[in-house]
Amino acid sequence: MDHSTALLTDRYELTMLQGALTAGTAHRRAIFEVFARQLPNGRRYGVVAGTGRLLEALESFRFGGPELEFLTSQGIVDEPSAAWLESYRFSGNIWGYAEGDCYFPGSPILVVEGSFAEAVILETLSLSILNHDCAIASAASRMVRAAADRPIIEMGSRRTHEMAGVAAARAAYIAGFRSTSNLEAGRTYGVPTAGTSAHAFTLLHDSERHAFQAQLNALGPGTTLLVDTYDVPRAVAVAVELAGPELGAVRIDSGDLKEMAREVREQLDGLGAPKTRIIVTGDLDEYSIAALAASPVNGYGVGTSLVTGSGAPTASLVYKLVARAQTDDGPLRPVAKHSVGKPSKGGRKWAVRHRDDNGRAIAEVVSTSEPTSGPYDRPLLTPLVVNGEIVAREPLSEARDHHEQALAELPPSAFQLSRGEVAIPTKFVNGS
Amino acid sequence: MDHSTALLTDRYELTMLQGALTAGTAHRRAIFEVFARQLPNGRRYGVVAGTGRLLEALESFRFGGPELEFLTSQGIVDEPSAAWLESYRFSGNIWGYAEGDCYFPGSPILVVEGSFAEAVILETLSLSILNHDCAIASAASRMVRAAADRPIIEMGSRRTHEMAGVAAARAAYIAGFRSTSNLEAGRTYGVPTAGTSAHAFTLLHDSERHAFQAQLNALGPGTTLLVDTYDVPRAVAVAVELAGPELGAVRIDSGDLKEMAREVREQLDGLGAPKTRIIVTGDLDEYSIAALAASPVNGYGVGTSLVTGSGAPTASLVYKLVARAQTDDGPLRPVAKHSVGKPSKGGRKWAVRHRDDNGRAIAEVVSTSEPTSGPYDRPLLTPLVVNGEIVAREPLSEARDHHEQALAELPPSAFQLSRGEVAIPTKFVNGS
Repeated sequence: MDHSTALLTDRYELTMLQGALTAGTAHRRAIFEVFARQLPNGRRYGVVAGTGRLLEALESFRFGGPELEFLTSQGIVDEPSAAWLESYRFSGNIWGYAEGDCYFPGSPILVVEGSFAEAVILETLSLSILNHDCAIASAASRMVRAAADRPIIEMGSRRTHEMAGVAAARAAYIAGFRSTSNLEAGRTYGVPTAGTSAHAFTLLHDSERHAFQAQLNALGPGTTLLVDTYDVPRAVAVAVELAGPELGAVRIDSGDLKEMAREVREQLDGLGAPKTRIIVTGDLDEYSIAALAASPVNGYGVGTSLVTGSGAPTASLVYKLVARAQTDDGPLRPVAKHSVGKPSKGGRKWAVRHRDDNGRAIAEVVSTSEPTSGPYDRPLLTPLVVNGEIVAREPLSEARDHHEQALAELPPSAFQLSRGEVAIPTKFVNGS
Repeated sequence: MDHSTALLTDRYELTMLQGALTAGTAHRRAIFEVFARQLPNGRRYGVVAGTGRLLEALESFRFGGPELEFLTSQGIVDEPSAAWLESYRFSGNIWGYAEGDCYFPGSPILVVEGSFAEAVILETLSLSILNHDCAIASAASRMVRAAADRPIIEMGSRRTHEMAGVAAARAAYIAGFRSTSNLEAGRTYGVPTAGTSAHAFTLLHDSERHAFQAQLNALGPGTTLLVDTYDVPRAVAVAVELAGPELGAVRIDSGDLKEMAREVREQLDGLGAPKTRIIVTGDLDEYSIAALAASPVNGYGVGTSLVTGSGAPTASLVYKLVARAQTDDGPLRPVAKHSVGKPSKGGRKWAVRHRDDNGRAIAEVVSTSEPTSGPYDRPLLTPLVVNGEIVAREPLSEARDHHEQALAELPPSAFQLSRGEVAIPTKFVNGS
């Protein structure tokens, strides 16, 4: 992002800054923590995504002339606050769960340490990115598990905000999707892109035969032909007649996909095209993907349900002050509000995934002092920013790997699609 | 948007382009239409939003060096297609419903006329923007009606993609929200901004009293103090003690809001602060707002449910080819696919809101020839782009006005919050 991200901020963060500067409390050391009180929708686990995007956005979080002009002309901040913002660079430390790792209720997936002033104004930027990307990755991971070894193409850009679509493609890729329809995600993040044609292409031409021939001429026989514009069996027959047994795939986007897949597979085999694959699309989610497990389907395209988090479009992550000093350099003391129904646990947190000797996860252990890890435990927080310097930049492929490894640790109950208990309990351990 | 928006596109649009260029069918005149097959969630009406953003994004839809380099190096398009994209400027016509107007199933809210090639590649950009913004505005409008004359602050940025938050603030404002917490929406779109402090500000200080005093010192007694960090009655007492009867407002973010509002109102009145307003926040949606109608609440803040479309995060709009010529300049002929369960009606459409002599809407009349309007009917499609030139740029305030006027026409049943029938039926009229 070349633009300043500084105004992707809720106004109250800047009024709090001004209040604290006025009161002389702005420079107290503080720790903010990002966590989810619970997982949405009875999910068994959540998936961390967005961290890489957040670190990029943090680099562009600068209050330049245009931003300050807006803030002062609108009376949103006074001159001393504007002066402070002008020289703002986050100079603190950030630790986080690795992108692709799993999280559970109370997991401190991001820990931000700095002065109150410099940390409080990162709330909205952090939550926007993490709430969106974690919601998408969490839904995507379930779809990938449901699809087992069959690839899934992400194709939801048309159903969400134009920039959210790009981020969704990235998050889905972390969680194991094979590719995306979104070209900007291909350019910006290197996610492999896919896609061939829509019904419009068939309708443009004088007949389905003309349309198929046009597509084969342009893209070769390995392409995917969309066969449900008029009559599926007729379309499949024409497709194989024109492309031969080398036809890459046919796509079915409507109807009873289970029944259709069976019939089309039979027809393709009968026509001597046993290698031609069947791709199904059309309002799929993890449940309908699971229902197609026994059907002769070779790949899925998922749109709406992916970009809307399959019923949970936001991850319910919050950004809370958990500790602060009472003087600028005093010791950090835990703090927590007492609001009804919204419990928070005060104090700086550490976290390990407690595992047995088979490497199987048993509990998420969150402690308020540095933990003494068991021999198989896996520490979860890694340094992302040290003294204002970003120290963790990893290719997306590593996040994909993290995710596979993190899933491999989870007990089988994690992969039930039904609503239920989280896969492992979170144990809070009080430190000294 | 300064950046090129050209890659906010699904790959299949460019493979269709290439196929049509190869086949010599790319320059056939074509009409694409954006419409919803149904409204989500048993809603009574939808609200058009995003048109202004789409027109801006259209201006930046240019394939420059970096975009073409990506597309050719990845083998996504061949050289002739790349050459065509390089000189791409949309040269056709676009008509649309006014931003802020209502829509119903089948309403042709956007009609795009051009060559197949130049119109087909606008699918994803158009749908991403309209599906998101219409979903938000449609949910927002119900909340505004539920709140009656009480103002609503939009504060959902933390719960959605960082750029979606900006667009959501804009869409909510069109639908009648009073303000937003999102500073970028203030800068980019002139939406009024609001916000004072979070629990973190109270927790930073040595006591709630210190925190309130700090905020009052910085922002004056007209500010809004957050009173539910520890104990609400104690906080309200301290707030009035420090600020006096001029205290602007108190905010309650947790607990039983109905009960709390009643108690706090009594307490404020008892303390001689009858003008101090009560703002409530905390997972509100149109239903909980409606449930507070009889409570002494002066304003609402809505976050999560707004930016997630209150259960319908996407508007289910589709972009379909409805007519095309069989030669480059031949007459337009209706087309429609026959896919099971996804009916489309072919042909270029016109639309009027049919009204009675009291100006009350009776039906959405969608016709495939220019309609002969009744005396009270209101034509719904206005020119947005003429021969590639954007002709409709209106301030956001006009979209806000459109929305109020469009709502005023609807029958009372439109404002029932329960799931049910759409407010007026859509009548399809076949032209000659």
